[in-house]
Amino acid sequence: MTIRSFHPQVRTLMGPGPADVHPRILEALSRPTIGHLDPQFVAMMEELKELLRYAFRTQNPLTMPVSAPGSAGMETCFANLVEPGDKVIVCINGVFGGRMKENVARTGGTAVVVSDPWGRAVDPQKLEDTLKAHPDARLVAFVHAETSTGARSDAKTLIEIAHAHDCLTIVDTVTSLGGCPVEVDAWEADAVYAGTQKCLSCTPGLAPISFHERALEKVRNRKTKIQSWFLDLNLVMSYWGSNQQRSYHHTAPINALYGLHEALLLLQEEGIEQAWARHERNHLALRAGLEVMGLSFIVPESERLPQMNTVSIPEGIEDAAVRSRLLHQYNLEIGAGLGELAGKVWRIGLMGYSSRPENVLFCISALGSVLNDLGAKVDLNEALAQAHAALGQA
Amino acid sequence: MTIRSFHPQVRTLMGPGPADVHPRILEALSRPTIGHLDPQFVAMMEELKELLRYAFRTQNPLTMPVSAPGSAGMETCFANLVEPGDKVIVCINGVFGGRMKENVARTGGTAVVVSDPWGRAVDPQKLEDTLKAHPDARLVAFVHAETSTGARSDAKTLIEIAHAHDCLTIVDTVTSLGGCPVEVDAWEADAVYAGTQKCLSCTPGLAPISFHERALEKVRNRKTKIQSWFLDLNLVMSYWGSNQQRSYHHTAPINALYGLHEALLLLQEEGIEQAWARHERNHLALRAGLEVMGLSFIVPESERLPQMNTVSIPEGIEDAAVRSRLLHQYNLEIGAGLGELAGKVWRIGLMGYSSRPENVLFCISALGSVLNDLGAKVDLNEALAQAHAALGQA
Repeated sequence: MTIRSFHPQVRTLMGPGPADVHPRILEALSRPTIGHLDPQFVAMMEELKELLRYAFRTQNPLTMPVSAPGSAGMETCFANLVEPGDKVIVCINGVFGGRMKENVARTGGTAVVVSDPWGRAVDPQKLEDTLKAHPDARLVAFVHAETSTGARSDAKTLIEIAHAHDCLTIVDTVTSLGGCPVEVDAWEADAVYAGTQKCLSCTPGLAPISFHERALEKVRNRKTKIQSWFLDLNLVMSYWGSNQQRSYHHTAPINALYGLHEALLLLQEEGIEQAWARHERNHLALRAGLEVMGLSFIVPESERLPQMNTVSIPEGIEDAAVRSRLLHQYNLEIGAGLGELAGKVWRIGLMGYSSRPENVLFCISALGSVLNDLGAKVDLNEALAQAHAALGQA
Repeated sequence: MTIRSFHPQVRTLMGPGPADVHPRILEALSRPTIGHLDPQFVAMMEELKELLRYAFRTQNPLTMPVSAPGSAGMETCFANLVEPGDKVIVCINGVFGGRMKENVARTGGTAVVVSDPWGRAVDPQKLEDTLKAHPDARLVAFVHAETSTGARSDAKTLIEIAHAHDCLTIVDTVTSLGGCPVEVDAWEADAVYAGTQKCLSCTPGLAPISFHERALEKVRNRKTKIQSWFLDLNLVMSYWGSNQQRSYHHTAPINALYGLHEALLLLQEEGIEQAWARHERNHLALRAGLEVMGLSFIVPESERLPQMNTVSIPEGIEDAAVRSRLLHQYNLEIGAGLGELAGKVWRIGLMGYSSRPENVLFCISALGSVLNDLGAKVDLNEALAQAHAALGQA
């Protein structure tokens, strides 16, 4: 085959991530590569940590990006904090809770599952009951914002319960960071990880993490070696730590880090509370339009994430046909269902730079038109009017 | 502190990597992000695998980039191929062999070390003797091109010996891929990994790997689960495999992969044998200049890598002062010594896009000038004339 430079057709990304990447971030990626121990680069790393602390609302010194995607951020938390034989309570209400359980197994821990329906928040009472039944548990892990369902759990309450039972916490904020309140210090979270390709509008490939001193103490006092050399925080911190003498661990993904620096700068310029409000506003406008179309959310209103809108696919409408038309006729990507929700739902993301009024209106227009083509009777006048009204009111 | 967009001072990168990144690759990084399951992206992934097979000189179907830096490529090989209790022969002749040993320990294997002096190739006879003494060994691991010393080992011979003793092989080609012959199929290598930021001229952050069917069989028939979820090839292949139905494992680093695609296209356009010849030619020119300066290589000529020129620091010359002047006065980065060579050598990289006549002449001029400033008596007329002559003769 003859291979040429890859110039993708531009899409509007309204799936579960990656979201649209801000042009300033794309430009940042193409800046000249310099060395990973260059004093200029080391100074940029310090800024990056400061900006991440702003995004996570924390003072944790160990706040940095892992040099790999969000899944590796998850693995960093489990590989460093779980020792063989440790009992870990894992709350599962979607795909990513399930992945946490798998991580516990692979680090030699024993997972005890707190199970909630997909599309619902984690039930604090169930966590409390489970902790009472397992007083030897060491850790509690849960997903703040379940990307597979669009449900938000009450992180503060879950962490309080875990701490009352002497457990440390691992919290997945992959989809929440930058899109709705993530309050690492106010929650007293012990270890959190996130992704860059969701509400930070950045490209995928990095996993911001933040560890409280309580969690670091556990890492330092392990009886066994961390099974991953690449993710061993004791080693990673010799490069990312704040001591003057940075020593080489692995070669950092220089240009990807330029992108994250720019993404976090954009967040700081907008103001994080303003970014949360924007996500909420655009969500309400999309919701108004989707409801006119007869599409209902699978998550109860009080547990809904503004950045991840999961709606049931109407009876008689074929999932793949709709997504394929949106992609090929409108260059619009929306997300399919994952796991037990495959074929049953669409996941419409309004994350980061994708969370804009123009995307809300475009999505309603395109999805409504495709549904009408397939025989539905969507009143687009009304759907767009309701969305416009919601945008105006905000 | 007030944080602004990061616009680094441009450097010439002649250290151990990252090397200078070709402008076409920097441009590729800034192309619009699309989804990791977008049919356009999936088609690009197929091209990427084909281009990597060209670079590795292999037909191995499992040839793909791991979504993390070279160190994670190393860990992918060890985590998938070593089971607890396995005995692994690790050849150490520099920093990266030592890191392999650490990987064996963390996967629960037992490492038996074949030790050679830093700056020398791995001695095949020692490997043979060690394998005879350890007939229960399962794997042999070695570094083809030791980035910490600039020594090249005879991969074909080492693999032949390993196979004669029923061992699979793990070969580090991080610094060799694209810069000197790497012949995965002709060598009959079982598992190899590389980096992108060396002789492929790309940004750091990805680790190309290639696994032969023999190695995959071992992965499939493991008695124990692979301890890393993120690096488990059984799972990764559900996304990178060639089946039509790609399923989500982790979110691929989209834009970084655009960059690698462009880098490999550049390699194919030049022709891999031409790229090897270019690395050799520029190395000979640099060598001619360095020898006039009185700088001697630590690696014997027959074991020298053209892309990694390691020379002893002259008596009385302070390592850090020279590198600092080069960086601040000339924006030129050369590499420091690592491990037991720290303070004793400089590592001058001529990798990928950095391997150009202009860089050879610039490095000789700048380094010679700095040494003269510090009291050395370098004849730059002669050094440059010799380098010019070597370039002309090639």
